[in-house]
Amino acid sequence: MTQNVDFLLFNAHILTMNKDYTQYRHGAIAISGDKIVAIGQQDEILHSYSAEKSLDCGGKVLMPGLVNAHTHVPMTLLRGLADDLRLDVWLMGYMMPVEREFVSPEFCRLGTLIACAEFIKSGVTCFADMYYFEDDVAQASADAGMRGVLGQTVMKFPAPDAASYEESLAIARDFIKKWKGHPLIVPAVSPHAPYTCTPDILRATAELAIEFDVPLHTHLAETAFEVENMRNENGMPVIPYVKKQGLLDAKLLAAHCVHIDEGEMRSLFHAEAGVAHNPSSNLKLASGMAPVTKMLETGLNVGIGTDGPASNNDLDMFEEVRLAAFLAKTQSNDPTSLPARQALAMATRLGANALHIGDLTGSLEIGKRADLILVDLNPLHNSPRFERSPDNAYAQIVYAAKSTDVTDVMVNGRWLMRDRQLLTLNEADLLRQAEAYARRIDAFLMKREQSVLSKLIALGGSTEEESFEVQSKVKLTQPSLVLEALKKPEIEVVYQRHYRQYDHYFFFDENQGRLRYREDDFIDVNGKVHDVRARLTLIGENREQELGADVLLSRSRYLAPATQSLRFYREYFRPISEKEIEKDRLRWLVKYKGVEFYINLDTVQKPDLGHFLEVKSRTWSRKDADTKAKLTAELVDFLGASAGERITRDYIELIGS
Amino acid sequence: MTQNVDFLLFNAHILTMNKDYTQYRHGAIAISGDKIVAIGQQDEILHSYSAEKSLDCGGKVLMPGLVNAHTHVPMTLLRGLADDLRLDVWLMGYMMPVEREFVSPEFCRLGTLIACAEFIKSGVTCFADMYYFEDDVAQASADAGMRGVLGQTVMKFPAPDAASYEESLAIARDFIKKWKGHPLIVPAVSPHAPYTCTPDILRATAELAIEFDVPLHTHLAETAFEVENMRNENGMPVIPYVKKQGLLDAKLLAAHCVHIDEGEMRSLFHAEAGVAHNPSSNLKLASGMAPVTKMLETGLNVGIGTDGPASNNDLDMFEEVRLAAFLAKTQSNDPTSLPARQALAMATRLGANALHIGDLTGSLEIGKRADLILVDLNPLHNSPRFERSPDNAYAQIVYAAKSTDVTDVMVNGRWLMRDRQLLTLNEADLLRQAEAYARRIDAFLMKREQSVLSKLIALGGSTEEESFEVQSKVKLTQPSLVLEALKKPEIEVVYQRHYRQYDHYFFFDENQGRLRYREDDFIDVNGKVHDVRARLTLIGENREQELGADVLLSRSRYLAPATQSLRFYREYFRPISEKEIEKDRLRWLVKYKGVEFYINLDTVQKPDLGHFLEVKSRTWSRKDADTKAKLTAELVDFLGASAGERITRDYIELIGS
Repeated sequence: MTQNVDFLLFNAHILTMNKDYTQYRHGAIAISGDKIVAIGQQDEILHSYSAEKSLDCGGKVLMPGLVNAHTHVPMTLLRGLADDLRLDVWLMGYMMPVEREFVSPEFCRLGTLIACAEFIKSGVTCFADMYYFEDDVAQASADAGMRGVLGQTVMKFPAPDAASYEESLAIARDFIKKWKGHPLIVPAVSPHAPYTCTPDILRATAELAIEFDVPLHTHLAETAFEVENMRNENGMPVIPYVKKQGLLDAKLLAAHCVHIDEGEMRSLFHAEAGVAHNPSSNLKLASGMAPVTKMLETGLNVGIGTDGPASNNDLDMFEEVRLAAFLAKTQSNDPTSLPARQALAMATRLGANALHIGDLTGSLEIGKRADLILVDLNPLHNSPRFERSPDNAYAQIVYAAKSTDVTDVMVNGRWLMRDRQLLTLNEADLLRQAEAYARRIDAFLMKREQSVLSKLIALGGSTEEESFEVQSKVKLTQPSLVLEALKKPEIEVVYQRHYRQYDHYFFFDENQGRLRYREDDFIDVNGKVHDVRARLTLIGENREQELGADVLLSRSRYLAPATQSLRFYREYFRPISEKEIEKDRLRWLVKYKGVEFYINLDTVQKPDLGHFLEVKSRTWSRKDADTKAKLTAELVDFLGASAGERITRDYIELIGS
Repeated sequence: MTQNVDFLLFNAHILTMNKDYTQYRHGAIAISGDKIVAIGQQDEILHSYSAEKSLDCGGKVLMPGLVNAHTHVPMTLLRGLADDLRLDVWLMGYMMPVEREFVSPEFCRLGTLIACAEFIKSGVTCFADMYYFEDDVAQASADAGMRGVLGQTVMKFPAPDAASYEESLAIARDFIKKWKGHPLIVPAVSPHAPYTCTPDILRATAELAIEFDVPLHTHLAETAFEVENMRNENGMPVIPYVKKQGLLDAKLLAAHCVHIDEGEMRSLFHAEAGVAHNPSSNLKLASGMAPVTKMLETGLNVGIGTDGPASNNDLDMFEEVRLAAFLAKTQSNDPTSLPARQALAMATRLGANALHIGDLTGSLEIGKRADLILVDLNPLHNSPRFERSPDNAYAQIVYAAKSTDVTDVMVNGRWLMRDRQLLTLNEADLLRQAEAYARRIDAFLMKREQSVLSKLIALGGSTEEESFEVQSKVKLTQPSLVLEALKKPEIEVVYQRHYRQYDHYFFFDENQGRLRYREDDFIDVNGKVHDVRARLTLIGENREQELGADVLLSRSRYLAPATQSLRFYREYFRPISEKEIEKDRLRWLVKYKGVEFYINLDTVQKPDLGHFLEVKSRTWSRKDADTKAKLTAELVDFLGASAGERITRDYIELIGS
């Protein structure tokens, strides 16, 4: 008597990827519904089971589908948009402005469908995602028939799908409630990273994950910079910090973990956390090489992820597995590290464990879901095929085979690809829609990149300074005279400040004006720096007009807080030349004859230009400007500086290029 | 009037990869014979040229074929044979024994044809090779229609194609004479590496290369170990050493250069040497990461190679280019390092320059040979396609495209692949032949791996010890008595030695015996180590039989000089358990009653077992053994040790496991 099942696959070289790494050189597998009912030697299985539908696998390798442990699937639509850039320039200069403009439910559905098509064609049956509009990601994934652990992003900044943190947390809660219990989708919550969340946000997401018993998927310790900041700001590395916020009490999936120490590994291990290793992304963004061998030795479930396709630039897990094995060898200076078999386990069983769905998928074992792929090892690049050792099969898959060798894919007992033909997705249609997006994004970026101003605005936070300014500047030979004059009763000092100013000017082609990056170091009474502020100012060419008596009227300027580094702005704006100036500034806000003036006593130290007096006043009308211009000339005289040379140019124009 | 040419390709996105990185978004190219006659905007080319044969490229990318700057093509037949091993175990334990057995002209022809098929299918049009029977490699390459710079190997060891260095040098000379001037093949000479050649061999190969004005292709500075040995033995790093032997006077192609400093880079630059960077191989064998960014900054022509397919395990240059870009970023901690455009130049123009055939190939320019490929960027993993910047095209090829996206390949004006169908090679036939080799190699290795003895023999140099030994061992409480007795006139001391012995025993399953790795440190009269010797001995189980009076007769044993490290043998033989023993040994060869005896006075220090006397004598017959057994017992008595406990076991059997 044979037992009847729904489906039989036979004549396959089965790599079960179970804990014992059992292989069946001539194997068969029996499937009923969404589950594996039996697996073993072909003779035995075919003797015990029968099915109406069966498939002769023609000697191909039959193995569990690959698990992509960390990605952002809708970003397929941003693949190849901007490369070979530093993380901040890539993220703040390109990804975020484009995401602000384009990311919508429709964008996320399309991007997800394209990713699912690419996954299926490259043998991935399950993925862990983190993005916006995750409900649309989930619907598209389910439509494609893919298994996913999908995390709705929560962070302190406004996101394309939420104006505030409270809103994104509410969205995450609704998302989890809606999808919990779905046969393919495991909902999750995704606080973006410790540095984009407050402690409160982290705690709230951990509580949410625990309340619904769902995974919490986040970025941890991706760069050395992140760890350095964490130590400076919180006096501890990343893992202890997030432990303090309760993240280790949830089913944690920690992406990256490039910069964690052995103590942190043990913390993660005791919390039964999963780790997603992202070799391509970490190399491409120069984040470093994660200590994978040590993490595995600690007993951690380390999966492998591609990260988002905008920083990889594909979703090819065959490449990632090979790279994971290669990097571990080089990092440990030992070619026996992370052998092929173990690397492939990371991409299957360990990956599923890292996603906290090891009971469902990740290996071919009785009772698990039928998530499996067939790999054709006949193509030339896999030839010949040695059989001396069981390890030969893993080495062939990891070191020689390509994702394009995957011919058939089944998820949850349902075929998603047969003979390289997608069964649930229309590839040509997806390609057309993707191209239409690319044209719109190209146009948006090209328009933005037409001018320095539009690039500045794209960064966000810039404001046009509406007020005009009356200004007079005089070279001083005796700055002490000014200090004396300021003590006279005619002057009412509102406040006094002392700072050191570092100005960095970027110059551009064709009337684009110049961009000033100014860092003000505020000096306290003891001569110590007590605060630092940086600002960007875009100044048009020929911005000033003379009002007589060497008094200038400034035109409007664009200002933005400089939240990024000087290096960021250099790589983002790509100036054709640069100049630097460094000065010590004593600054007073005073009232003179009832009118407010700013008085700057500057010592330009780099280059060494000497002492200068600046007298400035804000104005709003031409008539007011004329009045203030006269008063400015009078104040310069009062401050004992009228004998000095009038300077009608900016300091930066006084120095050669 | 239009000019008539042989072939026109139009409607292509052309990446010329010339020095200016000129692109034609809607380009065309005109070919006559083997050469490019014109290239440019489609409108202009189609206006000026006509041809009977033309191809609408359907908007695909048209670019120069890739140049694989370092490989060993016949090793396709050894692909995936042995992986995740250290270089020495891989090379001495697997590659060399198999090469000794199988490498023949037929093997090299078949391996080359398979490699050429893989090259063509992955867009490679030119490669630099180094192997044995290079004449057969050349014939197979020419038959496939591939361009190659092919180096006949010369080294100090016997090779599969030459019993001596002189013979291999003569073969190299004949090879160069035969192929010099061929339209596809550039012959070269390949001294294997500084550590496998004598200074004389290096000089002779340099002279040969200069005499015929052909490239010299060699491995340089692949591992830190090589550089360390070079410094120890010759007091200088690798590049100055080979410069001293004249290699920099030839057209040098230096593979690897993982461990060279900036001075060495400048030496190579001034010598106009080319470098072949092998990212996968260097990672997989844990050799390190070559300083590619610095080499390029120095101005060196750095190409990219796959290395042999047995250490990669494929010939996929798309993977190598991507990996080169990734590694450079991580190594320099800067994601802007080695951008896609420059990485692709390494795989094309710079690679051809490194091979010293930059005048022939490497870019699409008028006058160069028509070596070109079409790449289809329609497959999903390349989607969408941004056009904002010219760099988008390079990023798409390098970071997203796969070798399987190559659809058409032309070398020297001749199509080798159209629509992914090979035109010069029969893929199915090659696969069949490769499988037949794999079965033979599997059988050879499986037979060899049946026993520790056959594995020992496979390493080469082992000998069976034919003589038998009579032995008596006694535990001593007063070793000084032995020293006194040896001064008596009945004893004639032939010589005396003092050494420290480190014995490392490997144990195996099922009557395989045990393998002893013994290091003898010879101690001089001042107590200093003046020489070190290491030997391997395979000792059968139950090897001794008692002859009475606790005198033992040893059976035959297999001995081999231990030229590799203890670690090598551990990884090669994979024992199930190990034991260590360390002792101080005073050894005398004496004559007693006209018979030679070895007397050992041992102090076993690790573990601390105390003092022992061993009296041994070689024997050749059972009768002689009986006589010597009696004499041995007498000598033990004479040495004042007859009261001591008789030990009938090896020291190793006295200690627990």
